[in-house]
Order: sequence, then structure tokens, then C-alpha cells
Amino acid sequence: MFTAEILVIGNEILLGEVLDTNSHFLCRYLTERGGQVRRVVEVPDDPEAIAAEVRGALERGPDLIVTTGGLGPTEDDLTLPAVAQALGRPLRESPQALAMLERRYAELLAQGIIADATLTPPRRKMARLPEGGEPLPNPVGTAPAVLLRLERTLLVCLPGVPEEMEGIAQGPLRERLAQALGTGYHAQRSLRVQAGEATLSPILQTFARTHPDVYVKSHAGRVRPNARLEVRITLSAYGDTEAEAEDRVQKATEELRRALAGAGFET
Amino acid sequence: MFTAEILVIGNEILLGEVLDTNSHFLCRYLTERGGQVRRVVEVPDDPEAIAAEVRGALERGPDLIVTTGGLGPTEDDLTLPAVAQALGRPLRESPQALAMLERRYAELLAQGIIADATLTPPRRKMARLPEGGEPLPNPVGTAPAVLLRLERTLLVCLPGVPEEMEGIAQGPLRERLAQALGTGYHAQRSLRVQAGEATLSPILQTFARTHPDVYVKSHAGRVRPNARLEVRITLSAYGDTEAEAEDRVQKATEELRRALAGAGFET
Repeated sequence: MFTAEILVIGNEILLGEVLDTNSHFLCRYLTERGGQVRRVVEVPDDPEAIAAEVRGALERGPDLIVTTGGLGPTEDDLTLPAVAQALGRPLRESPQALAMLERRYAELLAQGIIADATLTPPRRKMARLPEGGEPLPNPVGTAPAVLLRLERTLLVCLPGVPEEMEGIAQGPLRERLAQALGTGYHAQRSLRVQAGEATLSPILQTFARTHPDVYVKSHAGRVRPNARLEVRITLSAYGDTEAEAEDRVQKATEELRRALAGAGFET
Repeated sequence: MFTAEILVIGNEILLGEVLDTNSHFLCRYLTERGGQVRRVVEVPDDPEAIAAEVRGALERGPDLIVTTGGLGPTEDDLTLPAVAQALGRPLRESPQALAMLERRYAELLAQGIIADATLTPPRRKMARLPEGGEPLPNPVGTAPAVLLRLERTLLVCLPGVPEEMEGIAQGPLRERLAQALGTGYHAQRSLRVQAGEATLSPILQTFARTHPDVYVKSHAGRVRPNARLEVRITLSAYGDTEAEAEDRVQKATEELRRALAGAGFET
């Protein structure tokens, strides 16, 4: 199991204009790989705010920090300068990132998506990485992702357009994460019970205390007139192998089902 | 204009199981009332993590802090004890909150939603508020929201079930926010331009510098084969009246349209 923090960057999120689905995708993606996401923060396109969050995260020392947003060509895409500032490193143009950009713009020109593939200053800006940063190719858009191996933490900067972020996560990032953090697994089951949360609370408490390696959570259903309350209970666990995680959750689910039946609840 | 921070509490978010739509709702809700949301944080159901975030937010001293989640009857609903700890105040059973709970459970019993309205210890737990806390009725579920007027900051704790959170925000909270923070307005327009972000960047930069009271942002469209790049530009502004905010954005949009037309771009 590794620990992770996520930093989502973009004014449009805090203005309530855009729903942040990136951190949801990343929470699921990292959990499935054995990661425990401890914190998600959303901040505006403000270099001081971004740098302060990166510094705060580095102090807590998770195994992984992922940022999303702010890698594009416009002036308010400020993630890489802010990360450089937080790390006390200069920004340098990466020949490898520049080559990726050249290749992508040539492809986009050939596909009729752009009319001119010249690396103008705004496009070229996307190749300026914090010193030591390694670019990862963007199979969907243009801005390369950036990977930084720090003393205790792997820092990964992903673009904010969801298709680009997912394209990199499902593409070049998968192998890099496995190399750096190993592989882990997470499994989950859920049960539905016709009861209120307050009624089930004592049973779930006892169960959670006797099963410290399984995470049990109840989710209150919506209150609807003339319908009995329903609670969804989820059980989840990490494991070194998929079979271990699945087995752990499977056994716990059966035990909880029996405990609930013993107390007179149908599942 | 007032400043705000949002704290979202719940393991299910960080496990990637549930998409956090609450902070999106709150970002929009607060922006529309003249609020500037500076930060959203998502943390697990861990009292230390919650208390640390509340303390951090109080140090930054925004006008408003809103928490969502962790107010229910189960043992992992820890927001109020954590807030009490962060404020250095004891938890006390509020007779007003207890009366709200009694009334709600009686209503739910009458509606056939529950079979027994007894205030069991888990139900009664929801009436234990940080000292000085004022309960707000929950028109949808059971847990009252809690309002705390601190020296510089209004702290509001809302439940995590979206319908309950929205019911309180659109109900009893509206008036309280207006009383405490005044009324403000925010308006927005958007334009679409057939161009890449990098190409528009210099025009938008110049425009943003000469219009400091309007926030201009470009949103890169999805890259699709055989389709020209499209950028959506949003302009938004705050105002003391709705008319002032609308007028500010309307004028800026017309000016930007002219600037883009002058540079050969159709909008």
C-alpha cells in the first residue's frame, strides 16, 4: 500500500463552473493500484497557492503527489513554475519535452486539427519543466505530463483536460507507477439493508473493531415518503495480490451478513 | 465579496467510490452570492485530519468555512467532535437540536419511513454540538446543520447526503448567509472561438491586464481528428448588485469580441 495526495488546479472548479471529475478518476485509479489517497485539494490558478499546497504535501511526505491542471500554453497555466518554486529548482527547457511537442503538433497538422505546427512561444512554454523533471507523452492533447522523483515522494503533474489526464494515466503513467510504487490491489463489496443508519450503528461498530484490515462504511439512503429507510454498506480491503484483497473482502462480507441476520436484518 | 473555504469529509470520496458533487454545488452557490471560494479540501473520516484542516482554514481567516459530511448517527461521523477539538471547545447537547431531532423523527414515523421514533443514543448523538453552535433544521434528513459565529469567520457544518445539504443551503442557510456576509452577485458569459489556446493566448493576456475587474479564462476543447480546435472563453465578474455584475461582464464580452474580430477570429 502506498499513500497519495491529489492537487487539482483551476479557477473554473472553484467558481463552480466545472465539476471536478479528475480527482474522482484519480482516487479510483490510485485505490485500485493499492494507493491510499489521504487528501484532495482544489486551488485556483494562483502560483502562491499552488506552491504552498505542494510544500505542505511534501512536508507530510506521501509516497505520491499527483497534480492535475495548469500545464497548457496560456499564461494562467502556472503549475510547473509553481512546482519549481516549491522545490527551489529552476525551470529549464527540456529537449525531450520539446521533441514530444514537435511530434504532437506535426501529427495534429497532418490530421487537419491545426493549420500551422510552428512551436510558437506559448506552445514552447509547455517544454519548460522543473529541473530534473521527466516528460511523459500526451497521447490525446499536447502538454506533456511531468514526473519528478524526489527524496521520499514521486511527484506527477498531469494536464487538466479529463481525456488528456486519463490518456496519460491509462498510458505511459501505469508502468511508471508500478516501477516506483510496486503493485497492490483493492477489492470492494456492498450490501443493502432495510434499516436506518442509527439502528445498524452498534452492529457495524462491533464488526469494524473485530476486522481492522477491512474498511466498513454505511451510506444513508435518501429519505422518501412511504418507503422504509435503506442503508448501503460497503466493505473494502487492500491486498498484495488481487486474490488476497478479494478473499479478505469476501470473507468479511459473509461474516457481516451472518451478524446482520443474527440481529434480525435481511440483506 | 466574501472569501470562503470548503471542507468535504468522507472516506468514500477518497476511495473513488463517490464523486464529490457537494463542493461543486457549494462553489456555485457561494459564487452566485458574491463569494470567492479559495480552496476546497477533501479529507477522510479521521478526526485528526479534519481538525487539522479546520485549524489551517481558521488561520487563513476566510469569512466563511463550510464543511460537508460526517454529521450522521454512526461512529465514523466525526465532524462535530473534530470541529470542537479544533476550536478548543467542548461538545454539549443542544436542547434546540434535540427538539429538531424529536420533531423530525416524529414526522418520519408519521410518514411511514421509520418504525420507531425513539431518540436512541446514535440519534441523540446528532444533538451534541460544539459549544456556542446553533442548529439549523434539516428539511430532508435528520441531522441538523450547525452554525458557529467565530471572531473573523462564520463556520457552517452541513450534512454530506447531497439532497440534505442542498435542502439546508436553499432553505434556512440562505437568510443566515445574507445576514452574516451581506449580499453580492456574480455574472458570467462565454464565447466560442475556432482556434487553439496557444494562438489566442497573447490577445487574452492583453485583455486580462486591461480588465482587472473581470476574470477571463480559456478552456481548451477536446482534440478531435479532422476538426479544428475550439476554445471556450468565459468572462465573469462580481458586483454589489446583480445589474452591476451583469453590466460589467456584458461590456467586457463586447470588447473582447471586438478585439478578437480585429485579430481575425470569428466568435
